Amino acid sequence: MITVGILGGGQLARMMVLEAAPLGIRFVVFDPAADACAGQVAPLQVGAFDDLAALEEFASRVDVVTFDFENVPAASARWLAERKPVFPSPAALAVAQDRLSEKTLFQELGIPLPPFADIGSREQLAAKVAEFGLPCILKTRRLGYDGKGQFRLRSEADIDAAWQALGAQADKTGLILEGFVAFDREVSVVAVRGRDGEFRAWPLTGNWHVDGVLSASLAPATVSAAQQQTAISYARRVAERLDYVGVFALELFCRGEELLANEMAPRVHNSGHWTSDGAETSQFQNHVRAVLGLPLGDTRVLGHACMLNWIGQMPDPAPVLAEPAGHWHDYGKQPRDGRKVGHANLREDSTAALAGALERVGAALGRQAQVAPVVQSLRDGGVTPA
Amino acid sequence: MITVGILGGGQLARMMVLEAAPLGIRFVVFDPAADACAGQVAPLQVGAFDDLAALEEFASRVDVVTFDFENVPAASARWLAERKPVFPSPAALAVAQDRLSEKTLFQELGIPLPPFADIGSREQLAAKVAEFGLPCILKTRRLGYDGKGQFRLRSEADIDAAWQALGAQADKTGLILEGFVAFDREVSVVAVRGRDGEFRAWPLTGNWHVDGVLSASLAPATVSAAQQQTAISYARRVAERLDYVGVFALELFCRGEELLANEMAPRVHNSGHWTSDGAETSQFQNHVRAVLGLPLGDTRVLGHACMLNWIGQMPDPAPVLAEPAGHWHDYGKQPRDGRKVGHANLREDSTAALAGALERVGAALGRQAQVAPVVQSLRDGGVTPA
Ligand SMILES: Nc1ncnc2c1ncn2[C@@H]1O[C@H](COP(=O)(O)OP(=O)(O)OP(=O)(O)O)[C@@H](O)[C@H]1O
Ligand SMILES: Nc1ncnc2c1ncn2[C@@H]1O[C@H](COP(=O)(O)OP(=O)(O)OP(=O)(O)O)[C@@H](O)[C@H]1O
Repeated sequence: MITVGILGGGQLARMMVLEAAPLGIRFVVFDPAADACAGQVAPLQVGAFDDLAALEEFASRVDVVTFDFENVPAASARWLAERKPVFPSPAALAVAQDRLSEKTLFQELGIPLPPFADIGSREQLAAKVAEFGLPCILKTRRLGYDGKGQFRLRSEADIDAAWQALGAQADKTGLILEGFVAFDREVSVVAVRGRDGEFRAWPLTGNWHVDGVLSASLAPATVSAAQQQTAISYARRVAERLDYVGVFALELFCRGEELLANEMAPRVHNSGHWTSDGAETSQFQNHVRAVLGLPLGDTRVLGHACMLNWIGQMPDPAPVLAEPAGHWHDYGKQPRDGRKVGHANLREDSTAALAGALERVGAALGRQAQVAPVVQSLRDGGVTPA
Repeated sequence: MITVGILGGGQLARMMVLEAAPLGIRFVVFDPAADACAGQVAPLQVGAFDDLAALEEFASRVDVVTFDFENVPAASARWLAERKPVFPSPAALAVAQDRLSEKTLFQELGIPLPPFADIGSREQLAAKVAEFGLPCILKTRRLGYDGKGQFRLRSEADIDAAWQALGAQADKTGLILEGFVAFDREVSVVAVRGRDGEFRAWPLTGNWHVDGVLSASLAPATVSAAQQQTAISYARRVAERLDYVGVFALELFCRGEELLANEMAPRVHNSGHWTSDGAETSQFQNHVRAVLGLPLGDTRVLGHACMLNWIGQMPDPAPVLAEPAGHWHDYGKQPRDGRKVGHANLREDSTAALAGALERVGAALGRQAQVAPVVQSLRDGGVTPA
């Protein structure tokens, strides 16, 4: 029996285990935390991501290695790749870990994106703010997630505050300045590429963020056929250039008919969680199929699906479980401010039925604001202003 | 966090764990075998089903108890029920463990069934064979599964052979003689009843057996609306009388428009395996929802689904994985003659697409005979002679 090793033991690893175990494989998850939630469903090895002795033992227990966490040190990934096959490759991971190399790649591939610049000093920051115009966003190049390590500049007066907040990172993670996109909507392409180069994408997902963290997703997103095709072609270009193996997400801003790349996530992605209940094959199973070199599963959507993220603590499950459309995903984590602890998926055959289910769930949980933009998008069948 | 204890650690427990873990619960499985396949996905306690010290420890680790194996000694189930809630109840389990009490119950509830009689001696056997006419079937009352512990009598000359084969069981498991039903088809109702009495059934499943073992299932079965309704009303009657909690299956023979009960299985059932990929909510998740007193999930079918059982050893997964409709379920067991080691589910939106997928899979795996009756049923949209 084949054993897949997963670096990182959070909810992504947990869902990979639960949804790919039917393939008849075993897993070992590796995480610094002894209470990592994937440890409830698979053997957990506790260790630091740069502890070579622990990684040596991990390598000896598994046949192939993949990731639940993209910020594993690139050196550790390379070191493991000398011992066992690692997918996605350390080289692909390294590109996706660094906003500058990622955006440089998008540019090389002819994928439109907002202006960006590497920032090494306060002077460079001021110069580039003047060049791009306001608003714009200063971000750490590495180790950012869920909108952390970001500072939005609205006026020239913010330059000092931004430098105060992030300047110390310039020599550590690096910094990047991006022009701010006044987007109508955000979408993501969740796609998978096999070891043999086969490429498949799920229908585009529409995403709504609150404070930089994903709040809700809707699939299929209400985009034009042309946008759908263009977005998927961008994802394919990136995957082929990186010789990428596994699932990844490409996040994009929509401004009218225009599509601008934001970033890529080199792993199964929060905006693909709806696929567990709303697609023929989930992102979790297809990631594992890809990593093992198995044929990829069909990515068609089954009707219309919405994902609602639960942050900090789980709400009452009853209103979701009582909906015919409702599927509950509790990651088995301790509640903690800002932590992703679970999500609900709602799947229905029609947009009207899904909108109705969302409204009932929103009302029952006092989360009208969370469901409102999704309901509006379903009712309009079109653009929802952010 | 709530912990569900499962008595028996085979594929049914394994799939309960995989499909109900998203509810945010933990599991402990109890099995006499140290390599029980559910132990790959949940903590396994090894012990005999009548080892009270082991059961005491098990009870202390869990909040509620259920079954993957219905032949747990009734005394052990009752003993556990004095310590922790046990669903289905030991009383319901006891009825379903004994073909005589089960059939007597069907009779009391006005559910049609073939003639049956308790058999204590060779003389009784001869007398009842004369009464029922031939062919008929002698079965052990208890501990039969997959057609084991059965003897088919085709002529009076078989009476001696039947008694030779099973007579010694008369004082152990008991014996029952049943009239043989020249059925057109076999169907099952897979249904679930909650702690609060809520009752739901999946659409009827059509089943094909080979040598007494399930070979393939198709849902929805091609039965008339009247048969569908009647069969589900029988299942409901049984569940209400037993105050049953959880998923169960009622197996029925169809002879023209007539429906005759065969037996009930007090657990998730092989004929409900298609629900993992072909229904809004699977039997595995709904069983756990019922046992925990949570709202039951929707039982609607998503298009058309077929299950192919793999017995003895797993075939090559590639042809199934390469089908858009294909879902693979490998239980992680060692191959062994006659052992259920896995299954494939195929789900499609139309009967024509499903029939095409089945034919390709059957041809690629050299299993044309296994898929043929299902394909015929899909093509006819009606009765398939057995
Ligand atoms: N250049 C931009 N213009 C407009 N909005 C932006 C820009 N960059 C980021 N945002 C907003 O902030 C959100 C999070 O930003 P980004 O994707 O860079 O963060 P992250 O920390 O990598 O997040 P995640 O963990 O979701 O990948 C975006 O989805 C978007 O809503
Ligand atoms: N009275 C009968 N008339 C005709 N066929 C029968 C009869 N009893 C059993 N069979 C055939 O044998 C199969 C298995 O019989 P039965 O359901 O009694 O066995 P079991 O060992 O309890 O099986 P399972 O493990 O599938 O529940 C039936 O599905 C049917 O095909």
